[in-house]
Amino acid sequence: MTGIFDSGIGGLTVVKALLKLLPEESFIYLGDTARTPYGNKSADTIIEYAKKDAKFLLDAGCDSLIIACNSVSAVATDILRELYPDVKIFEVITPAVDAAIATGATRIGVIGTRATIASGIYQKKIQNGYAKVQVLSKPCPLFVSLVEEGWMNERETKQIARKYLTVFREKSYQTLILGCTHYPLLTSVIQRAVGKKIHLIDSAEEVIQKYKKEAATKKEAATKTYFLTDISPHSVAIAQKWLGKKVHFEKADI
Amino acid sequence: MTGIFDSGIGGLTVVKALLKLLPEESFIYLGDTARTPYGNKSADTIIEYAKKDAKFLLDAGCDSLIIACNSVSAVATDILRELYPDVKIFEVITPAVDAAIATGATRIGVIGTRATIASGIYQKKIQNGYAKVQVLSKPCPLFVSLVEEGWMNERETKQIARKYLTVFREKSYQTLILGCTHYPLLTSVIQRAVGKKIHLIDSAEEVIQKYKKEAATKKEAATKTYFLTDISPHSVAIAQKWLGKKVHFEKADI
Repeated sequence: MTGIFDSGIGGLTVVKALLKLLPEESFIYLGDTARTPYGNKSADTIIEYAKKDAKFLLDAGCDSLIIACNSVSAVATDILRELYPDVKIFEVITPAVDAAIATGATRIGVIGTRATIASGIYQKKIQNGYAKVQVLSKPCPLFVSLVEEGWMNERETKQIARKYLTVFREKSYQTLILGCTHYPLLTSVIQRAVGKKIHLIDSAEEVIQKYKKEAATKKEAATKTYFLTDISPHSVAIAQKWLGKKVHFEKADI
Repeated sequence: MTGIFDSGIGGLTVVKALLKLLPEESFIYLGDTARTPYGNKSADTIIEYAKKDAKFLLDAGCDSLIIACNSVSAVATDILRELYPDVKIFEVITPAVDAAIATGATRIGVIGTRATIASGIYQKKIQNGYAKVQVLSKPCPLFVSLVEEGWMNERETKQIARKYLTVFREKSYQTLILGCTHYPLLTSVIQRAVGKKIHLIDSAEEVIQKYKKEAATKKEAATKTYFLTDISPHSVAIAQKWLGKKVHFEKADI
C-alpha cells in the first residue's frame, strides 16, 4: 500500500489523479494541516516535517511513498531515500520535468512556492536533461492562500495571476510547469493569464503516471484512508469540494 | 521581564507599540514561524501550540506574558491562566473591546482570522460590556497572506479589502476592531475601504497601553531578544522592514 503526503490539503490533487487513473489502488493520505503551509518555510524545517510525515505512513504499514508536495520533493527527497533505502519513494519534480522536456519546448517556465523556487531544483533538473532549454522560475506564494480560501475564480485571483504570470506570455515561454500541488486547482485562471499557446504541466498527474508504470499494486480490496494533523470545518469542507465527494478525515498526532 | 509571543511575525506590531511606549522595557519575543499561521487552524491545535510557546518563554525567565496573537487570545487565554496562575498574562482582546466601547459606538465591527471570528469572543465581550451594541464580525483570512507577502499597498490588496469590508461602510458601522495583529500593517488600506468616518481600534496598541499601566517594570538595562521557530530569509527581511530596523533573530526549537 502506498502512502501519500503533503503539507496540507493541496496534495489531494495527487489523490484525485490517483483515483482517476487507478481507482482500485489502496492508499493512506496524510495532510499536515497543523503545520501548513510548508512552502514559505526554511529547508531545515521542511525536512524535519517530511521525516515525521514519512515515519507516520511507514509505521501505518505503507511500503511506498508519494511525496505530493513540491516543497518537500525539492528539499527532502534525497534525505528520505537515504533514511529508507528499501522504500520506493516518488516525488513530483522529476516526472514533471520529463513531461516538460518531452514537449520539445526551448523555453520552460516553472512556478511554485518560495521554498521550491529557492531550491533551484527544477532549473537544475531541466538543464541536466537538456542544457539548451531556457528556464524561468517564479514563486507565486499567494496562489496557495487563494486556493485554500476557495477563491478559484474570483476577479482578484485572475488579477494576481496576471501580475505573476504575464512575463511568461511576454517572453514567449512554450511550456509552464505547475510546480505546486495546489496550482492545478487554478488551471483555468493560469491558462488564461499565460495564454492558450502555453502548455501547462501538472505535476500531480505526472507523478501518478509514473507511479502507475512502476509501482501500482495488483487489484485488491481497496482501502483509502485520509489523515489530517489538524481538522477544522473549513479545511474539511474545502477538501471535500476539491475531491468532489465526501470522505472521512481522521486525526493524526505526529 | 515580559515574554511576547505570536504565531509568526505579525506579533511584531505589538513589539513596535511596546518599543514606542516603553522603549526601556526588557522582553523576549517568540514568533512560531515554523507552524504559522495559527488563524486557520482548529482551537485544539492552537491551544497545544500556545502551551509550548508560553512554556518556552517562562523557561527562559519571563515572569509575565503578552499574547500578541488574537487567535491564541481567543481560544487559549483561560487555559494558560489556569496553567500558570502566578503569571500575569495579557491578551489582546479585552483591551481592544474596552477601547471600542469607550468610543461610544452603537455599531461595532470586528475583523480577524477564521479562528478568532469563529470563537465569537469579541461579540460576547462587547455585548457583556454593553448589551445594546450591534456587532458584526467578519473573517478576512487573506489579509495575513497579503501582509506576509509584503503587499501592503498593491492594487489587489485594496480590492480585496473593499470586497471584505464594504459591508461595514454600507451598514454605517462607527468603530472597527482590527482583531489580528497583522492588520495594523494594513491600516491605510483598511481605512480607505471602510471610509474615514469609521474609527479603527488597533489591538496591538491597546494591549501595550494596558501593560504599561499594570505591569511595566522599572527602567533597567534593557535586553530585547527575538526568537523565531523557523528562520527564512523572507520572514527575516519582512520582519525587519516592519520593525524599521535590523534585529537579530535566534532560532528556538520548541
